[in-house]
Amino acid sequence: MSTFTAAIIVIGDEILSGRTQDTNSNFIANILIEEGIKLEEVVVIKDDKKTIIDKVINYSEKYSYVFTTGGIGPTHDDITSESISMAFNLKYELNEKAFKILNDYYPKGEFNESRQKMAKMPSGSELILNPMTAAPGFIVKNVFVLPGVPKIMELMFLELIKKIKKGKPKIVTTINTNLYESKIAIFLKDIQYKYKESSIGSYPYFNLAAKTGGVNIVVSSWNMTSVQPVVDDIVDMIKLNGGKSSIV
Amino acid sequence: MSTFTAAIIVIGDEILSGRTQDTNSNFIANILIEEGIKLEEVVVIKDDKKTIIDKVINYSEKYSYVFTTGGIGPTHDDITSESISMAFNLKYELNEKAFKILNDYYPKGEFNESRQKMAKMPSGSELILNPMTAAPGFIVKNVFVLPGVPKIMELMFLELIKKIKKGKPKIVTTINTNLYESKIAIFLKDIQYKYKESSIGSYPYFNLAAKTGGVNIVVSSWNMTSVQPVVDDIVDMIKLNGGKSSIV
Repeated sequence: MSTFTAAIIVIGDEILSGRTQDTNSNFIANILIEEGIKLEEVVVIKDDKKTIIDKVINYSEKYSYVFTTGGIGPTHDDITSESISMAFNLKYELNEKAFKILNDYYPKGEFNESRQKMAKMPSGSELILNPMTAAPGFIVKNVFVLPGVPKIMELMFLELIKKIKKGKPKIVTTINTNLYESKIAIFLKDIQYKYKESSIGSYPYFNLAAKTGGVNIVVSSWNMTSVQPVVDDIVDMIKLNGGKSSIV
Repeated sequence: MSTFTAAIIVIGDEILSGRTQDTNSNFIANILIEEGIKLEEVVVIKDDKKTIIDKVINYSEKYSYVFTTGGIGPTHDDITSESISMAFNLKYELNEKAFKILNDYYPKGEFNESRQKMAKMPSGSELILNPMTAAPGFIVKNVFVLPGVPKIMELMFLELIKKIKKGKPKIVTTINTNLYESKIAIFLKDIQYKYKESSIGSYPYFNLAAKTGGVNIVVSSWNMTSVQPVVDDIVDMIKLNGGKSSIV
Protein backbone atom coordinates (compact mmCIF):
# COMPACT_ATOMS: atom_id res chain seq x y z
CA MET A 1 0.00 0.00 0.00
CA SER A 2 1.25 3.40 -0.88
CA THR A 3 1.84 5.32 2.29
CA PHE A 4 0.63 8.49 0.58
CA THR A 5 -3.06 9.13 0.08
CA ALA A 6 -4.83 12.00 -1.60
CA ALA A 7 -8.20 13.59 -2.22
CA ILE A 8 -9.35 16.21 -4.71
CA ILE A 9 -11.88 18.92 -3.91
CA VAL A 10 -13.36 20.40 -7.08
CA ILE A 11 -14.90 23.73 -6.14
CA GLY A 12 -17.42 25.18 -8.54
CA ASP A 13 -21.12 25.72 -9.15
CA GLU A 14 -20.40 25.36 -12.88
CA ILE A 15 -19.60 21.67 -12.43
CA LEU A 16 -22.68 20.97 -10.32
CA SER A 17 -24.93 22.80 -12.79
CA GLY A 18 -23.62 20.59 -15.60
CA ARG A 19 -22.32 23.60 -17.50
CA THR A 20 -18.74 22.37 -17.29
CA GLN A 21 -17.45 18.81 -17.49
CA ASP A 22 -14.70 18.49 -14.90
CA THR A 23 -11.52 17.11 -16.45
CA ASN A 24 -9.10 18.34 -13.79
CA SER A 25 -9.64 15.44 -11.43
CA ASN A 26 -9.03 12.90 -14.19
CA PHE A 27 -5.80 14.68 -15.13
CA ILE A 28 -4.61 14.68 -11.53
CA ALA A 29 -5.74 11.06 -10.97
CA ASN A 30 -3.66 9.79 -13.88
CA ILE A 31 -0.51 11.40 -12.52
CA LEU A 32 -1.05 10.47 -8.88
CA ILE A 33 -1.24 6.75 -9.62
CA GLU A 34 2.02 6.93 -11.57
CA GLU A 35 3.64 8.83 -8.74
CA GLY A 36 2.63 6.31 -6.10
CA ILE A 37 0.02 8.45 -4.42
CA LYS A 38 -3.29 6.75 -3.77
CA LEU A 39 -6.26 8.90 -4.73
CA GLU A 40 -9.01 7.94 -2.30
CA GLU A 41 -11.80 10.40 -3.02
CA VAL A 42 -12.90 13.20 -5.34
CA VAL A 43 -15.65 15.55 -4.32
CA VAL A 44 -17.35 18.34 -6.24
CA ILE A 45 -18.79 21.10 -4.06
CA LYS A 46 -20.49 24.42 -4.59
CA ASP A 47 -19.04 27.91 -4.14
CA ASP A 48 -20.04 28.19 -0.50
CA LYS A 49 -17.74 29.14 2.34
CA LYS A 50 -19.07 26.76 4.96
CA THR A 51 -19.03 23.83 2.53
CA ILE A 52 -15.44 24.55 1.50
CA ILE A 53 -14.27 25.00 5.08
CA ASP A 54 -15.87 21.77 6.31
CA LYS A 55 -14.54 19.72 3.42
CA VAL A 56 -11.00 21.13 3.62
CA ILE A 57 -10.74 20.49 7.36
CA ASN A 58 -12.12 16.97 7.03
CA TYR A 59 -9.95 15.92 4.09
CA SER A 60 -6.83 17.60 5.42
CA GLU A 61 -7.07 15.41 8.51
CA LYS A 62 -7.93 12.25 6.58
CA TYR A 63 -5.47 12.26 3.66
CA SER A 64 -1.75 12.93 3.10
CA TYR A 65 -2.48 15.45 0.34
CA VAL A 66 -5.52 17.48 -0.61
CA PHE A 67 -5.74 19.18 -3.99
CA THR A 68 -8.36 21.84 -4.61
CA THR A 69 -9.27 23.26 -8.00
CA GLY A 70 -11.25 26.41 -8.72
CA GLY A 71 -12.28 29.62 -7.03
CA ILE A 72 -9.00 31.53 -6.84
CA GLY A 73 -9.68 34.18 -9.48
CA PRO A 74 -10.46 37.88 -9.11
CA THR A 75 -14.28 37.82 -8.95
CA HIS A 76 -16.78 37.84 -6.09
CA ASP A 77 -17.53 34.12 -6.57
CA ASP A 78 -13.86 33.21 -6.03
CA ILE A 79 -13.92 32.39 -2.35
CA THR A 80 -11.56 29.44 -2.07
CA SER A 81 -8.55 31.33 -0.66
CA GLU A 82 -10.58 33.14 1.97
CA SER A 83 -12.41 29.93 2.94
CA ILE A 84 -9.18 27.98 3.34
CA SER A 85 -7.76 30.76 5.51
CA MET A 86 -10.82 30.42 7.72
CA ALA A 87 -10.55 26.61 7.75
CA PHE A 88 -7.08 26.84 9.30
CA ASN A 89 -7.64 29.98 11.39
CA LEU A 90 -5.05 31.83 9.38
CA LYS A 91 -5.13 35.47 8.39
CA TYR A 92 -6.35 36.06 4.82
CA GLU A 93 -3.82 38.60 3.60
CA LEU A 94 -1.72 39.89 0.72
CA ASN A 95 1.20 37.57 0.05
CA GLU A 96 4.23 39.71 -0.74
CA LYS A 97 5.78 37.37 -3.28
CA ALA A 98 2.46 36.87 -5.08
CA PHE A 99 1.89 40.62 -5.08
CA LYS A 100 5.28 41.19 -6.66
CA ILE A 101 4.75 38.50 -9.33
CA LEU A 102 1.41 39.98 -10.35
CA ASN A 103 2.62 43.57 -10.16
CA ASP A 104 5.48 42.69 -12.52
CA TYR A 105 3.18 40.75 -14.85
CA TYR A 106 0.53 43.38 -15.54
CA PRO A 107 1.20 46.54 -17.56
CA LYS A 108 1.71 49.63 -15.42
CA GLY A 109 -1.55 50.85 -13.89
CA GLU A 110 -3.46 47.65 -14.65
CA PHE A 111 -2.80 45.81 -11.41
CA ASN A 112 -6.17 46.88 -10.05
CA GLU A 113 -8.01 45.99 -6.87
CA SER A 114 -9.66 42.89 -8.38
CA ARG A 115 -6.35 41.56 -9.58
CA GLN A 116 -4.77 42.26 -6.21
CA LYS A 117 -7.32 39.88 -4.76
CA MET A 118 -5.39 37.09 -6.50
CA ALA A 119 -2.42 37.86 -4.24
CA LYS A 120 -4.51 37.31 -1.10
CA MET A 121 -4.17 33.96 0.61
CA PRO A 122 -3.69 32.35 4.01
CA SER A 123 -0.82 33.83 6.00
CA GLY A 124 2.41 31.88 5.52
CA SER A 125 1.36 30.11 2.31
CA GLU A 126 3.96 28.74 -0.04
CA LEU A 127 3.34 29.68 -3.68
CA ILE A 128 2.62 27.35 -6.59
CA LEU A 129 3.89 29.23 -9.61
CA ASN A 130 1.74 29.78 -12.70
CA PRO A 131 3.78 29.79 -15.92
CA MET A 132 0.81 30.86 -18.05
CA THR A 133 -1.16 33.70 -16.48
CA ALA A 134 1.04 34.57 -13.46
CA ALA A 135 -1.61 34.32 -10.71
CA PRO A 136 -0.16 31.72 -8.35
CA GLY A 137 -1.78 28.95 -6.39
CA PHE A 138 -0.58 28.13 -2.91
CA ILE A 139 0.21 25.44 -0.39
CA VAL A 140 -0.98 25.61 3.18
CA LYS A 141 -0.36 22.61 5.46
CA ASN A 142 -1.11 19.59 3.25
CA VAL A 143 -3.58 21.45 1.01
CA PHE A 144 -2.57 22.41 -2.54
CA VAL A 145 -4.72 25.14 -4.01
CA LEU A 146 -4.99 25.26 -7.79
CA PRO A 147 -7.08 27.21 -10.31
CA GLY A 148 -10.02 25.76 -12.24
CA VAL A 149 -9.06 26.62 -15.83
CA PRO A 150 -7.76 23.23 -17.05
CA LYS A 151 -4.76 24.28 -19.12
CA ILE A 152 -3.41 26.49 -16.32
CA MET A 153 -4.18 23.95 -13.62
CA GLU A 154 -2.37 21.24 -15.57
CA LEU A 155 0.82 23.24 -16.04
CA MET A 156 0.87 24.19 -12.37
CA PHE A 157 0.18 20.64 -11.24
CA LEU A 158 3.04 19.27 -13.35
CA GLU A 159 5.45 21.62 -11.57
CA LEU A 160 3.96 20.97 -8.17
CA ILE A 161 4.12 17.19 -8.39
CA LYS A 162 7.89 17.32 -8.79
CA LYS A 163 8.24 18.74 -5.32
CA ILE A 164 6.13 16.49 -3.16
CA LYS A 165 7.00 13.21 -1.51
CA LYS A 166 5.83 10.21 -3.45
CA GLY A 167 5.45 6.46 -3.03
CA LYS A 168 6.02 3.45 -5.22
CA PRO A 169 3.86 3.65 -8.37
CA LYS A 170 0.95 1.26 -8.59
CA ILE A 171 1.63 -1.61 -10.99
CA VAL A 172 -1.16 -1.89 -13.52
CA THR A 173 -1.77 -4.31 -16.40
CA THR A 174 -4.92 -4.37 -18.50
CA ILE A 175 -6.14 -7.47 -20.32
CA ASN A 176 -8.80 -7.19 -22.98
CA THR A 177 -11.05 -10.10 -23.86
CA ASN A 178 -13.95 -10.69 -26.21
CA LEU A 179 -15.75 -12.82 -23.62
CA TYR A 180 -18.70 -11.37 -21.75
CA GLU A 181 -18.21 -10.40 -18.15
CA SER A 182 -20.79 -12.84 -16.83
CA LYS A 183 -19.00 -15.73 -18.55
CA ILE A 184 -15.76 -15.13 -16.63
CA ALA A 185 -17.07 -13.56 -13.44
CA ILE A 186 -16.95 -16.71 -11.33
CA PHE A 187 -13.37 -17.53 -12.37
CA LEU A 188 -12.18 -13.95 -11.88
CA LYS A 189 -13.53 -14.11 -8.36
CA ASP A 190 -11.41 -17.20 -7.66
CA ILE A 191 -8.30 -15.54 -9.07
CA GLN A 192 -8.98 -12.42 -6.99
CA TYR A 193 -9.31 -14.67 -3.93
CA LYS A 194 -5.98 -16.34 -4.73
CA TYR A 195 -4.08 -13.04 -5.14
CA LYS A 196 -5.30 -10.86 -2.31
CA GLU A 197 -2.51 -8.33 -2.70
CA SER A 198 -3.72 -7.46 -6.16
CA SER A 199 -6.93 -5.78 -7.15
CA ILE A 200 -8.81 -7.12 -10.17
CA GLY A 201 -11.29 -4.73 -11.77
CA SER A 202 -13.66 -5.80 -14.51
CA TYR A 203 -14.96 -3.17 -16.95
CA PRO A 204 -17.40 -4.32 -19.62
CA TYR A 205 -18.18 -2.36 -22.76
CA PHE A 206 -20.92 -2.78 -25.29
CA ASN A 207 -21.44 -1.78 -28.86
CA LEU A 208 -24.98 -2.87 -29.56
CA ALA A 209 -24.96 -1.49 -33.11
CA ALA A 210 -21.95 -3.60 -34.03
CA LYS A 211 -23.18 -6.43 -31.78
CA THR A 212 -19.78 -6.56 -30.15
CA GLY A 213 -18.64 -6.20 -26.61
CA GLY A 214 -16.09 -7.42 -24.19
CA VAL A 215 -14.28 -6.69 -21.00
CA ASN A 216 -11.19 -4.86 -19.92
CA ILE A 217 -9.73 -6.57 -16.88
CA VAL A 218 -7.44 -4.32 -14.90
CA VAL A 219 -4.98 -6.01 -12.56
CA SER A 220 -3.22 -3.67 -10.18
CA SER A 221 -1.21 -3.74 -7.00
CA TRP A 222 0.51 -1.30 -4.69
CA ASN A 223 2.53 -4.03 -2.97
CA MET A 224 3.45 -6.82 -5.35
CA THR A 225 6.71 -6.53 -7.27
CA SER A 226 4.95 -7.95 -10.33
CA VAL A 227 1.36 -8.79 -11.23
CA GLN A 228 2.49 -11.23 -13.94
CA PRO A 229 1.29 -14.37 -12.05
CA VAL A 230 -2.19 -12.86 -11.80
CA VAL A 231 -2.17 -11.84 -15.45
CA ASP A 232 -1.00 -15.34 -16.49
CA ASP A 233 -3.83 -16.97 -14.54
CA ILE A 234 -6.39 -14.67 -16.15
CA VAL A 235 -5.04 -15.23 -19.67
CA ASP A 236 -5.12 -19.02 -19.13
CA MET A 237 -8.65 -18.80 -17.77
CA ILE A 238 -9.85 -16.82 -20.80
CA LYS A 239 -8.29 -19.42 -23.13
CA LEU A 240 -9.94 -22.29 -21.24
CA ASN A 241 -13.27 -20.52 -21.73
CA GLY A 242 -12.72 -20.28 -25.47
CA GLY A 243 -11.97 -16.57 -25.51
CA LYS A 244 -9.28 -14.34 -26.93
CA SER A 245 -7.14 -12.05 -24.84
CA SER A 246 -4.61 -9.31 -25.37
CA ILE A 247 -2.61 -7.03 -23.13
CA VAL A 248 -3.63 -3.43 -23.78
CA MET B 1 -34.80 27.66 -3.81
CA SER B 2 -35.76 24.37 -5.21
CA THR B 3 -37.15 22.24 -2.44
CA PHE B 4 -35.48 19.19 -3.96
CA THR B 5 -31.79 18.56 -3.50
CA ALA B 6 -29.60 15.78 -4.82
CA ALA B 7 -26.18 14.20 -4.64
CA ILE B 8 -24.38 11.75 -6.89
CA ILE B 9 -22.12 8.97 -5.63
CA VAL B 10 -19.83 7.68 -8.38
CA ILE B 11 -18.58 4.27 -7.29
CA GLY B 12 -15.49 2.98 -9.01
CA ASP B 13 -11.77 2.43 -8.66
CA GLU B 14 -11.47 3.06 -12.41
CA ILE B 15 -12.40 6.71 -11.96
CA LEU B 16 -9.98 7.23 -9.05
CA SER B 17 -7.15 5.55 -10.95
CA GLY B 18 -7.70 7.95 -13.84
CA ARG B 19 -8.41 5.08 -16.22
CA THR B 20 -11.92 6.33 -16.89
CA GLN B 21 -13.13 9.91 -17.20
CA ASP B 22 -16.49 10.07 -15.42
CA THR B 23 -19.15 11.58 -17.67
CA ASN B 24 -22.18 10.20 -15.84
CA SER B 25 -22.32 12.93 -13.22
CA ASN B 26 -22.20 15.66 -15.88
CA PHE B 27 -25.04 13.97 -17.76
CA ILE B 28 -27.14 13.75 -14.61
CA ALA B 29 -26.24 17.31 -13.54
CA ASN B 30 -27.49 18.79 -16.80
CA ILE B 31 -30.87 17.12 -16.45
CA LEU B 32 -31.32 17.80 -12.74
CA ILE B 33 -30.99 21.57 -13.16
CA GLU B 34 -33.61 21.55 -15.91
CA GLU B 35 -35.89 19.48 -13.75
CA GLY B 36 -35.66 21.81 -10.79
CA ILE B 37 -33.56 19.54 -8.60
CA LYS B 38 -30.56 21.17 -6.99
CA LEU B 39 -27.40 19.07 -7.26
CA GLU B 40 -25.41 19.83 -4.12
CA GLU B 41 -22.52 17.42 -4.24
CA VAL B 42 -20.82 14.77 -6.35
CA VAL B 43 -18.41 12.32 -4.80
CA VAL B 44 -16.24 9.64 -6.39
CA ILE B 45 -15.41 6.75 -4.07
CA LYS B 46 -13.60 3.45 -4.35
CA ASP B 47 -15.09 -0.05 -4.54
CA ASP B 48 -15.08 -0.58 -0.79
CA LYS B 49 -18.05 -1.68 1.28
CA LYS B 50 -17.49 0.51 4.30
CA THR B 51 -16.89 3.60 2.15
CA ILE B 52 -20.07 2.97 0.15
CA ILE B 53 -22.16 2.30 3.25
CA ASP B 54 -20.97 5.44 5.07
CA LYS B 55 -21.51 7.68 2.07
CA VAL B 56 -24.96 6.29 1.24
CA ILE B 57 -26.20 6.69 4.80
CA ASN B 58 -24.83 10.21 5.08
CA TYR B 59 -26.14 11.48 1.74
CA SER B 60 -29.50 9.74 2.08
CA GLU B 61 -30.11 11.72 5.27
CA LYS B 62 -28.80 14.97 3.85
CA TYR B 63 -30.39 15.17 0.38
CA SER B 64 -33.81 14.56 -1.20
CA TYR B 65 -32.36 12.23 -3.80
CA VAL B 66 -29.15 10.25 -4.05
CA PHE B 67 -28.03 8.76 -7.36
CA THR B 68 -25.31 6.13 -7.43
CA THR B 69 -23.51 4.92 -10.54
CA GLY B 70 -21.41 1.80 -10.93
CA GLY B 71 -20.82 -1.51 -9.23
CA ILE B 72 -24.01 -3.41 -10.03
CA GLY B 73 -22.62 -5.89 -12.57
CA PRO B 74 -21.94 -9.61 -12.23
CA THR B 75 -18.30 -9.60 -11.07
CA HIS B 76 -16.66 -9.81 -7.65
CA ASP B 77 -15.83 -6.09 -7.70
CA ASP B 78 -19.52 -5.16 -8.08
CA ILE B 79 -20.44 -4.60 -4.46
CA THR B 80 -22.82 -1.65 -4.64
CA SER B 81 -26.07 -3.61 -4.20
CA GLU B 82 -24.80 -5.59 -1.24
CA SER B 83 -23.34 -2.48 0.39
CA ILE B 84 -26.57 -0.51 0.03
CA SER B 85 -28.49 -3.42 1.56
CA MET B 86 -26.13 -3.24 4.51
CA ALA B 87 -26.43 0.55 4.73
CA PHE B 88 -30.18 0.25 5.28
CA ASN B 89 -30.17 -3.02 7.24
CA LEU B 90 -32.13 -4.71 4.47
CA LYS B 91 -31.76 -8.29 3.33
CA TYR B 92 -29.61 -8.65 0.18
CA GLU B 93 -31.72 -11.08 -1.83
CA LEU B 94 -32.96 -12.17 -5.25
CA ASN B 95 -35.61 -9.78 -6.51
CA GLU B 96 -38.29 -11.86 -8.21
CA LYS B 97 -39.13 -9.33 -10.92
CA ALA B 98 -35.47 -8.74 -11.74
CA PHE B 99 -34.88 -12.49 -11.82
CA LYS B 100 -37.73 -12.94 -14.29
CA ILE B 101 -36.54 -10.09 -16.54
CA LEU B 102 -33.02 -11.51 -16.72
CA ASN B 103 -34.21 -15.10 -17.09
CA ASP B 104 -36.37 -14.06 -20.07
CA TYR B 105 -33.55 -11.98 -21.58
CA TYR B 106 -30.79 -14.57 -21.71
CA PRO B 107 -30.87 -17.59 -24.03
CA LYS B 108 -31.90 -20.80 -22.32
CA GLY B 109 -29.15 -22.16 -20.07
CA GLU B 110 -27.14 -18.92 -20.08
CA PHE B 111 -28.64 -17.29 -17.00
CA ASN B 112 -25.77 -18.50 -14.88
CA GLU B 113 -24.83 -17.83 -11.26
CA SER B 114 -22.87 -14.66 -12.08
CA ARG B 115 -25.76 -13.21 -14.02
CA GLN B 116 -28.16 -14.12 -11.24
CA LYS B 117 -26.11 -11.85 -9.01
CA MET B 118 -27.52 -8.95 -11.04
CA ALA B 119 -30.98 -9.83 -9.70
CA LYS B 120 -29.81 -9.51 -6.09
CA MET B 121 -30.63 -6.25 -4.31
CA PRO B 122 -31.99 -4.86 -1.06
CA SER B 123 -35.28 -6.45 -0.01
CA GLY B 124 -38.28 -4.44 -1.21
CA SER B 125 -36.42 -2.48 -3.90
CA GLU B 126 -38.33 -0.96 -6.77
CA LEU B 127 -36.74 -1.66 -10.16
CA ILE B 128 -35.30 0.86 -12.62
CA LEU B 129 -35.70 -0.83 -15.99
CA ASN B 130 -32.81 -1.20 -18.42
CA PRO B 131 -33.93 -0.98 -22.07
CA MET B 132 -30.49 -1.93 -23.40
CA THR B 133 -28.98 -4.88 -21.54
CA ALA B 134 -31.89 -5.93 -19.28
CA ALA B 135 -30.07 -5.89 -15.91
CA PRO B 136 -32.12 -3.43 -13.86
CA GLY B 137 -31.12 -0.78 -11.36
CA PHE B 138 -33.19 -0.20 -8.28
CA ILE B 139 -34.65 2.34 -5.88
CA VAL B 140 -34.46 1.92 -2.13
CA LYS B 141 -35.70 4.77 0.07
CA ASN B 142 -34.40 7.93 -1.66
CA VAL B 143 -31.42 6.20 -3.27
CA PHE B 144 -31.44 5.48 -7.01
CA VAL B 145 -28.93 2.84 -8.03
CA LEU B 146 -27.68 2.95 -11.61
CA PRO B 147 -24.98 1.16 -13.60
CA GLY B 148 -21.65 2.70 -14.58
CA VAL B 149 -21.61 2.08 -18.35
CA PRO B 150 -22.56 5.55 -19.65
CA LYS B 151 -24.92 4.66 -22.50
CA ILE B 152 -26.93 2.28 -20.32
CA MET B 153 -26.92 4.63 -17.34
CA GLU B 154 -28.17 7.49 -19.52
CA LEU B 155 -31.11 5.54 -20.96
CA MET B 156 -32.12 4.36 -17.50
CA PHE B 157 -31.80 7.82 -16.00
CA LEU B 158 -33.99 9.35 -18.70
CA GLU B 159 -36.77 6.91 -17.79
CA LEU B 160 -36.24 7.33 -14.08
CA ILE B 161 -36.37 11.12 -14.09
CA LYS B 162 -39.91 11.04 -15.47
CA LYS B 163 -41.16 9.39 -12.33
CA ILE B 164 -39.70 11.49 -9.53
CA LYS B 165 -41.02 14.67 -7.96
CA LYS B 166 -39.40 17.78 -9.34
CA GLY B 167 -39.18 21.48 -8.59
CA LYS B 168 -39.20 24.64 -10.66
CA PRO B 169 -36.26 24.63 -13.13
CA LYS B 170 -33.42 27.00 -12.41
CA ILE B 171 -33.45 30.03 -14.71
CA VAL B 172 -30.08 30.45 -16.38
CA THR B 173 -28.75 33.04 -18.83
CA THR B 174 -25.14 33.20 -20.01
CA ILE B 175 -23.51 36.40 -21.22
CA ASN B 176 -20.23 36.28 -23.10
CA THR B 177 -17.85 39.21 -23.15
CA ASN B 178 -14.42 39.91 -24.60
CA LEU B 179 -13.40 41.86 -21.49
CA TYR B 180 -11.04 40.27 -19.00
CA GLU B 181 -12.48 39.08 -15.73
CA SER B 182 -10.37 41.41 -13.63
CA LYS B 183 -11.68 44.42 -15.57
CA ILE B 184 -15.29 43.74 -14.62
CA ALA B 185 -14.87 41.94 -11.29
CA ILE B 186 -15.58 44.96 -9.11
CA PHE B 187 -18.76 45.87 -11.03
CA LEU B 188 -20.00 42.28 -11.09
CA LYS B 189 -19.64 42.21 -7.34
CA ASP B 190 -21.90 45.26 -7.04
CA ILE B 191 -24.50 43.72 -9.32
CA GLN B 192 -24.37 40.48 -7.34
CA TYR B 193 -24.90 42.52 -4.17
CA LYS B 194 -27.91 44.26 -5.72
CA TYR B 195 -29.60 41.02 -6.82
CA LYS B 196 -29.17 38.66 -3.92
CA GLU B 197 -31.74 36.18 -5.20
CA SER B 198 -29.63 35.51 -8.26
CA SER B 199 -26.27 33.88 -8.46
CA ILE B 200 -23.65 35.37 -10.78
CA GLY B 201 -20.81 33.08 -11.82
CA SER B 202 -17.80 34.30 -13.74
CA TYR B 203 -15.88 31.83 -15.92
CA PRO B 204 -12.82 33.10 -17.75
CA TYR B 205 -11.22 31.34 -20.69
CA PHE B 206 -7.91 31.89 -22.37
CA ASN B 207 -6.41 31.10 -25.71
CA LEU B 208 -2.82 32.20 -25.38
CA ALA B 209 -1.88 31.05 -28.88
CA ALA B 210 -4.57 33.24 -30.44
CA LYS B 211 -4.00 35.89 -27.76
CA THR B 212 -7.72 35.97 -27.10
CA GLY B 213 -9.77 35.39 -24.03
CA GLY B 214 -12.89 36.51 -22.32
CA VAL B 215 -15.46 35.59 -19.76
CA ASN B 216 -18.72 33.73 -19.68
CA ILE B 217 -20.96 35.25 -17.03
CA VAL B 218 -23.68 32.90 -15.89
CA VAL B 219 -26.68 34.46 -14.18
CA SER B 220 -29.00 31.99 -12.52
CA SER B 221 -31.79 31.88 -9.98
CA TRP B 222 -34.05 29.30 -8.38
CA ASN B 223 -36.49 31.93 -7.10
CA MET B 224 -36.75 34.89 -9.45
CA THR B 225 -39.39 34.76 -12.19
CA SER B 226 -36.87 36.34 -14.56
CA VAL B 227 -33.18 37.20 -14.42
CA GLN B 228 -33.57 39.82 -17.16
CA PRO B 229 -32.94 42.82 -14.83
CA VAL B 230 -29.63 41.27 -13.76
CA VAL B 231 -28.67 40.50 -17.35
CA ASP B 232 -29.55 44.05 -18.42
CA ASP B 233 -27.36 45.54 -15.69
CA ILE B 234 -24.44 43.32 -16.70
CA VAL B 235 -24.81 44.11 -20.41
CA ASP B 236 -24.91 47.86 -19.63
CA MET B 237 -21.86 47.54 -17.39
CA ILE B 238 -19.89 45.74 -20.12
CA LYS B 239 -20.80 48.48 -22.60
CA LEU B 240 -19.73 51.20 -20.16
CA ASN B 241 -16.38 49.44 -19.86
CA GLY B 242 -15.89 49.44 -23.61
CA GLY B 243 -16.57 45.76 -24.11
CA LYS B 244 -18.78 43.64 -26.33
CA SER B 245 -21.37 41.24 -25.03
CA SER B 246 -23.65 38.56 -26.39
CA ILE B 247 -26.14 36.16 -24.90
CA VAL B 248 -24.96 32.61 -25.51
